[in-house]
Amino acid sequence: MNNRRALKGAIAAIASAATLGVLAAPALANETSTYNLNGKSVAELAQHGGAQRIAAIGNGNAKNVILFIGDGMGDSEITVARDYLKGANGHFEGLDAVGQPAELGDTNAGTGQYTTFSLGGNSGDSAVGKDDKGSLNANPNPGKLTAVTDSSASGSAWATGTKTYNNAVDVDVYGNPQLNLFELAKAAGKATGNVTTAEIQDATPAVLESHSTERGCYGPQGKTDGSSNDAAKRCLVNQLKENGGIGSISEQLLDTRADVTIGGGSKYFRQTVQGGEYAGKTVWEQAKEMGYQTVENDPAAMNALEYKEGQPVLALMSDGNMPTKFNPSKATAKDPAKDANPTVCTPNADWLGNQGSSLADMTKKALDLLEANPAGDANGYFLQVEGASIDKQDHAGNACGQIGETDDFDQAIAYAMKNVDLSNTLVIVTADHAHTSQILNAQPAYALSTVLKTADGNNMVVSYGTAEADSRDEDGGYNGGDMAHTGTQLRIAASGPGAQRVIGLTDQTDNFYTIANTLGLASTSDAQQSLSNDAKTEVKLTDGKYVAESTGFNGDAVLSYELKDKSGNVVVASDSSTPVSGVRVKTAQTTGITLDKVTEGNEYTLTVTGRQSGKTVTVDFQAPARGSSDKEPGDGKNDVIASGKVNNNPKSGVLGNTGSAISIAALVIAMLAAIAMIVKTAKISR
Amino acid sequence: MNNRRALKGAIAAIASAATLGVLAAPALANETSTYNLNGKSVAELAQHGGAQRIAAIGNGNAKNVILFIGDGMGDSEITVARDYLKGANGHFEGLDAVGQPAELGDTNAGTGQYTTFSLGGNSGDSAVGKDDKGSLNANPNPGKLTAVTDSSASGSAWATGTKTYNNAVDVDVYGNPQLNLFELAKAAGKATGNVTTAEIQDATPAVLESHSTERGCYGPQGKTDGSSNDAAKRCLVNQLKENGGIGSISEQLLDTRADVTIGGGSKYFRQTVQGGEYAGKTVWEQAKEMGYQTVENDPAAMNALEYKEGQPVLALMSDGNMPTKFNPSKATAKDPAKDANPTVCTPNADWLGNQGSSLADMTKKALDLLEANPAGDANGYFLQVEGASIDKQDHAGNACGQIGETDDFDQAIAYAMKNVDLSNTLVIVTADHAHTSQILNAQPAYALSTVLKTADGNNMVVSYGTAEADSRDEDGGYNGGDMAHTGTQLRIAASGPGAQRVIGLTDQTDNFYTIANTLGLASTSDAQQSLSNDAKTEVKLTDGKYVAESTGFNGDAVLSYELKDKSGNVVVASDSSTPVSGVRVKTAQTTGITLDKVTEGNEYTLTVTGRQSGKTVTVDFQAPARGSSDKEPGDGKNDVIASGKVNNNPKSGVLGNTGSAISIAALVIAMLAAIAMIVKTAKISR
Repeated sequence: MNNRRALKGAIAAIASAATLGVLAAPALANETSTYNLNGKSVAELAQHGGAQRIAAIGNGNAKNVILFIGDGMGDSEITVARDYLKGANGHFEGLDAVGQPAELGDTNAGTGQYTTFSLGGNSGDSAVGKDDKGSLNANPNPGKLTAVTDSSASGSAWATGTKTYNNAVDVDVYGNPQLNLFELAKAAGKATGNVTTAEIQDATPAVLESHSTERGCYGPQGKTDGSSNDAAKRCLVNQLKENGGIGSISEQLLDTRADVTIGGGSKYFRQTVQGGEYAGKTVWEQAKEMGYQTVENDPAAMNALEYKEGQPVLALMSDGNMPTKFNPSKATAKDPAKDANPTVCTPNADWLGNQGSSLADMTKKALDLLEANPAGDANGYFLQVEGASIDKQDHAGNACGQIGETDDFDQAIAYAMKNVDLSNTLVIVTADHAHTSQILNAQPAYALSTVLKTADGNNMVVSYGTAEADSRDEDGGYNGGDMAHTGTQLRIAASGPGAQRVIGLTDQTDNFYTIANTLGLASTSDAQQSLSNDAKTEVKLTDGKYVAESTGFNGDAVLSYELKDKSGNVVVASDSSTPVSGVRVKTAQTTGITLDKVTEGNEYTLTVTGRQSGKTVTVDFQAPARGSSDKEPGDGKNDVIASGKVNNNPKSGVLGNTGSAISIAALVIAMLAAIAMIVKTAKISR
Repeated sequence: MNNRRALKGAIAAIASAATLGVLAAPALANETSTYNLNGKSVAELAQHGGAQRIAAIGNGNAKNVILFIGDGMGDSEITVARDYLKGANGHFEGLDAVGQPAELGDTNAGTGQYTTFSLGGNSGDSAVGKDDKGSLNANPNPGKLTAVTDSSASGSAWATGTKTYNNAVDVDVYGNPQLNLFELAKAAGKATGNVTTAEIQDATPAVLESHSTERGCYGPQGKTDGSSNDAAKRCLVNQLKENGGIGSISEQLLDTRADVTIGGGSKYFRQTVQGGEYAGKTVWEQAKEMGYQTVENDPAAMNALEYKEGQPVLALMSDGNMPTKFNPSKATAKDPAKDANPTVCTPNADWLGNQGSSLADMTKKALDLLEANPAGDANGYFLQVEGASIDKQDHAGNACGQIGETDDFDQAIAYAMKNVDLSNTLVIVTADHAHTSQILNAQPAYALSTVLKTADGNNMVVSYGTAEADSRDEDGGYNGGDMAHTGTQLRIAASGPGAQRVIGLTDQTDNFYTIANTLGLASTSDAQQSLSNDAKTEVKLTDGKYVAESTGFNGDAVLSYELKDKSGNVVVASDSSTPVSGVRVKTAQTTGITLDKVTEGNEYTLTVTGRQSGKTVTVDFQAPARGSSDKEPGDGKNDVIASGKVNNNPKSGVLGNTGSAISIAALVIAMLAAIAMIVKTAKISR
């Protein structure tokens, strides 16, 4: 452990102490300084927590957190929807209630803005991804910041606390998996839920389920319905199971095993698994074999779901993204006729809310399931709810579409605000990035626009001018184009314990710390590595197969392993060619590794290493010779042959005993320095 | 007084009591209800305070308030400037410090969003203004809300608390003057300051100086340098002095007599006054005769200004708007060459900051003068500082221009944050409306854009797509166009006592109440009317002229008068044909009315009425006959012939004694009702 890491650990400890009231001073100058006037280098920003703006501000203490994400819902999109649905003076029942002081008697409410930039150049210029040959390009462009994020980099930021590149799902700019809020919540014994109107493999829900160098790596056959396979195009090939990787987003979703998953994208589960234990089965079949309660495109079945022990819910309600609440409008070129005949949005008959699956309905179901779950009841839950198609319809220049989705989203928030206990539940509402739509009084000359008739009876022009590609059709008219995300800072609002952390200017990564620390999850790298301190591995002979079963690697997303024979020759080993090669950890569950090449009677040494924590378990064992035990090998279900635990000494782990000693010394030094700084701060503040 | 007004007064009293801690409940349901889901009618919104969102939230108690207005500075404009100047992870020293909890030890800081819509239809479709014949069109379109405000309607909203139409300066949708923060601060004995980089007659500074049905009514000769006269085009003719009106914005500025006024627009003061006491003189000459310390286009002289008793400062530093900090960039059509050669902004040699008149320098001077002022020292001050050209350069698609102005603005805020006592000074930073510029990763196809090289070394595309007029030049290329305001909700941030009132979703009119109530000013209509309770009028014979001098009409902006002879015939009277006809009140000073047609020895009755308060002073007097007194008439300077005071009885004023009695009874009833509501609220909140 170097001094820098020691200092970081010490500062984290102080920050934690400050939260507990041990230290009263509000701000500590540290290496992740709150206010860096001129910004940081990419190398600093790329660190876990490196882009925080309010590291020094203490957290609240909540049992539960609900994070509502309006995808693409910038302040302009909020205002477009409010003006249309409620009138310019109107008030959203949910969206505008979160963060509003009077709603909670001035106690725990806050609103602010956060920055959303990403790292590594523009979209399509990912710092990490596939090179021309389809191999991992792990050579990030160190000078690049990206002014405008995509949904995957922004989702990764709040899910993990690490800034990364557009296209990344919970991996840093070097491709290294970063632990996400679901993994950390599960490690802490909490229940977890993930609800979206998008395909469940889409970036925003994906950041709670998976680690993927490419956001398009939906399933083992890529982004298809299973009738074809484009995985080599959509995924870093090393990440695919058949190549020794941790698998696609859908497969990892099953490994993550959230208690509640409700969204779209059921068709991708019709793909066929290409490698590992479930090869040859569909992803749906795998889910069922893994004990999931599954629902496929059936609102009535979704509403009938009940909590069943050991049977998490996986309800995918539509083949792709869910149908929108309103029928689409089309932004068109300037035309006075639009002013005379303003658009009034019409309900979409296909909207699932008509069948009892509005976003509010799905949120209600998720909350019911999480509250019925003994883990949720005892330890609390973390639930994310995404209103996904605000973004998707804004991309399409579809004002009615984005407005209807904002309405649906608002109702989901309103349900939560009325039905959760805000004294122990932190509700956060924000967006991942802003978008195109702008409110004007008059139609623009060369941007596309829609003239809407608002709730207060007036015309409002919604303008769309950011399409990157020239979208004129053959006749020289406009055809809509693909409108773009914008880079403005965004609204974030919160009600409940810890809401003060959203006041002022923060960064998207601060949201990770707000949620993780409020829930008492492991937020620092050191604390996360420590989650694997009690990891252990048992080698078993089960149904004639040798299997290594590991538990307690809760500070890791990926395991590597190596099996050596008595002579020290490697018999079998995981692939480690990329950070997403190896075995996907099933956090707070048992992660199995099948040992194919074990020969009866021979002696072996198995090492299993958490690739994030650096913690290693070593198991020496002799494969039982026939007749060597009282029981026949394999006649029982769980015959443990040998087991091992993490050797938490300085040699085996990144943070060993010596490291801890250094850490304590550094803590004392840093505390003294901090106290000196506090004195200095106090002087300055006069 | 009707029941509704009585209820309003009662509720205001309760709200005031709640602020003082008499009542602890956070929210009262009342007619200006905090959360009206579906918005209000225009008639309700057009009332003073009718558009408040957080009427029930208590205020802090500050001695001073500084309001920083970044004109057109939406969240996107802030982010454009931060990304360019500081890097995406950077931090503005001033702009990002206001509202940031850690900067103040988590005590008095808040950020939020506010709505900015206006009333009365789109720009050019004013509810009130001139009709085809140049007369006041006092028939507002009652069904209209305007999604996008201009600077005058938004400035009027925070300066007066009343929503109004685009083009209005401190008049409501019916054209009635609404008291502004300077008038109310002066009535409370506070010092006042107004600093801008724009022409001082521009909308944002104008809302503290004047009441005008048209924002373009800059001076007695309209919007000219004095070599011509377009007042009939720029002004409602009835408002002009020569037609018996309260005068142009520049003339009213002098009547308002702020302690400190620093801005641009000196050329309009070269106009010639057309009516009243100073007819035939230039506005500059009038200012000097009225005792102002004047500075015309001279930074050194501005910096040398010192507080002098009775000599307010009027420093106009440039003919028009001040030169910008950076040279202009020009947004152009899509061109790959722009990506290869991103724009770097260059300093403008003409920027006044080079001569010691940056916005920070002017803010420093204003603060020094206000603090040296005994009124400011004893009673506090209200200072507004506008960074005006963020808007103006955004209109021009000039990214460098708007960025440099944001920088200049940030430095002014930083100066204030470092040099005022935040324990007794509330600092607010916000904008009047959002604007066009959007941050993209790639150039848009049909909007104009500029590719900038940011502080962190990366390319950032700033897109401009809202021009309303087709701005293609003759060759089919783009020529920039006039980009438009946008209607999104905006950031508002505050540090200091009362900052909690900016958290959550508020309206621009709430900002009036935040400032007025924090300073202890009269914020309700009733309290404002009461400011004229002690008005009095003295009839004097001075230098051979009969003059009526009124004081104490502090609840009024306009006076009317009528002089009758013994037979009851009207000898002379003010024009009352429009709400801006009559005599402009010089708040907290003496307002003189010259009585031309008085004949020696005759008996008269003069009535002077405050048009906002309804309070009337009646003076019966006999014009002294030559030899009728010991002194020759007119040989003294201030020979008081007769005087009168407001008769605060039911007949003379809108709110008389009976009204007061009703008010107290209503207060008791309303308090009982409110207590019942509190009990109900307490039950609901379980």
